[in-house]
Amino acid sequence: MRSIVSFYFCYLLCLCLGIACIVLVTTWNSKWRGGFAWDGSSLQFNWHPVLMVTGLVVLYGNGAVLYRVPLTWGQNKLPWKLLHAGVMLLALICSVLGLCAVFDFHNANKTQNLYSLHSWIGICTTALFTLQWVLGLAGFLLPCSPMSFRKLLKPAHVWMGGSILILSVVSCISGINEKLFFALKGTTNGTQPYANLPPEALVANSFGVLIVLFGLVILKILSNPHWQRQEASEDVSYSVSATNLLMS
Amino acid sequence: MRSIVSFYFCYLLCLCLGIACIVLVTTWNSKWRGGFAWDGSSLQFNWHPVLMVTGLVVLYGNGAVLYRVPLTWGQNKLPWKLLHAGVMLLALICSVLGLCAVFDFHNANKTQNLYSLHSWIGICTTALFTLQWVLGLAGFLLPCSPMSFRKLLKPAHVWMGGSILILSVVSCISGINEKLFFALKGTTNGTQPYANLPPEALVANSFGVLIVLFGLVILKILSNPHWQRQEASEDVSYSVSATNLLMS
Repeated sequence: MRSIVSFYFCYLLCLCLGIACIVLVTTWNSKWRGGFAWDGSSLQFNWHPVLMVTGLVVLYGNGAVLYRVPLTWGQNKLPWKLLHAGVMLLALICSVLGLCAVFDFHNANKTQNLYSLHSWIGICTTALFTLQWVLGLAGFLLPCSPMSFRKLLKPAHVWMGGSILILSVVSCISGINEKLFFALKGTTNGTQPYANLPPEALVANSFGVLIVLFGLVILKILSNPHWQRQEASEDVSYSVSATNLLMS
Repeated sequence: MRSIVSFYFCYLLCLCLGIACIVLVTTWNSKWRGGFAWDGSSLQFNWHPVLMVTGLVVLYGNGAVLYRVPLTWGQNKLPWKLLHAGVMLLALICSVLGLCAVFDFHNANKTQNLYSLHSWIGICTTALFTLQWVLGLAGFLLPCSPMSFRKLLKPAHVWMGGSILILSVVSCISGINEKLFFALKGTTNGTQPYANLPPEALVANSFGVLIVLFGLVILKILSNPHWQRQEASEDVSYSVSATNLLMS
């Protein structure tokens, strides 16, 4: 009982942190960076942080801990699997759109793509997430996938899941840091330099700290063995129920 | 047996990655950033990445996985505890010296301290590491520490250990990214801009990728339950042997 209460405390914390991250990244880009558009201008770039954080951090993190919610434990796993895959697909779509926003902006402004360490790690994270999603679909949702493949894939899927979250956080923090050095030079439009910590810098730095906290709470939930769903013979029963579902 | 072979493969990998990280950060700062000095110049700043990566990433990571080495399992834990504490103290000293290097450099050049997201996360990481080391000493090395405190502290110590490593990696990547944007502006001394990916940028970006890989391998080792030392009644026997050691 105490373990379940602790879980829901952590879960509530990660929900609040996730919402706070989305609110802060949207506020930052609408209030201080001029808002949003899809026209090749810097307003198109502003979609990049919003979509990457919403997809690759908040939706991804919440999708990753879905099976840990005790409410789902006694129930058939299939609907939760579909929800897990659905949330992760939404996260993937947001991430790909977020990449399109920055590539389009760079191309429209004849800026080179993929040269910074932030971009190297970011693109690897999205590529690994895509691979993880496709393998997850093939291994755990297609009823024809052999049990041996499923057993082989599961520990790798769990490990890759945590690693992708860490990579996402690393990408986001280096991206926010980079953006603030680019934007707050203190030379144009009367903006203060980053070193003076103007309100924009305080909000964006705090947003970065919340992303790190969100990532650590999600990893805490994922790593606690008391919060893991007991799998015993479930994959077999899922296999049967999924086949029934697809054949009915 | 297979599990032990896998462990030593991961351990060898993390040793090689750690050495490669130290070689690359030293090469980057000696070959392209002018080398090292302790005189308030940019050559003093160059100690910052070298000391932080050596301390907060490589030594820290290797200290964290010490208990996982199967060779140590059958033996008295106390010498390994002392080695763990010693390696972590060395890591802490390197990190504090690395911070002194950058604070001294900023102060000598009248640059503000602690305004970037990189610096916020970096300073929190070092503060948490210091707290972790002091609590670890009080809880696990002082023979007078009560067993109830030790039992309470252990899961928090293990969890904080992994979190500090993640924070270290986040700090390093944002710091490398920031440094390259500062250093490779392509306007002075005929240096090429970062966007052209000159050899320095390639080396420093690759060094960043190696840090991430090192962190992920260490976390993989820490999270594998098959590679954990069985603790059963060891803390009690340690308590007795430590008391004997200190009283003898």
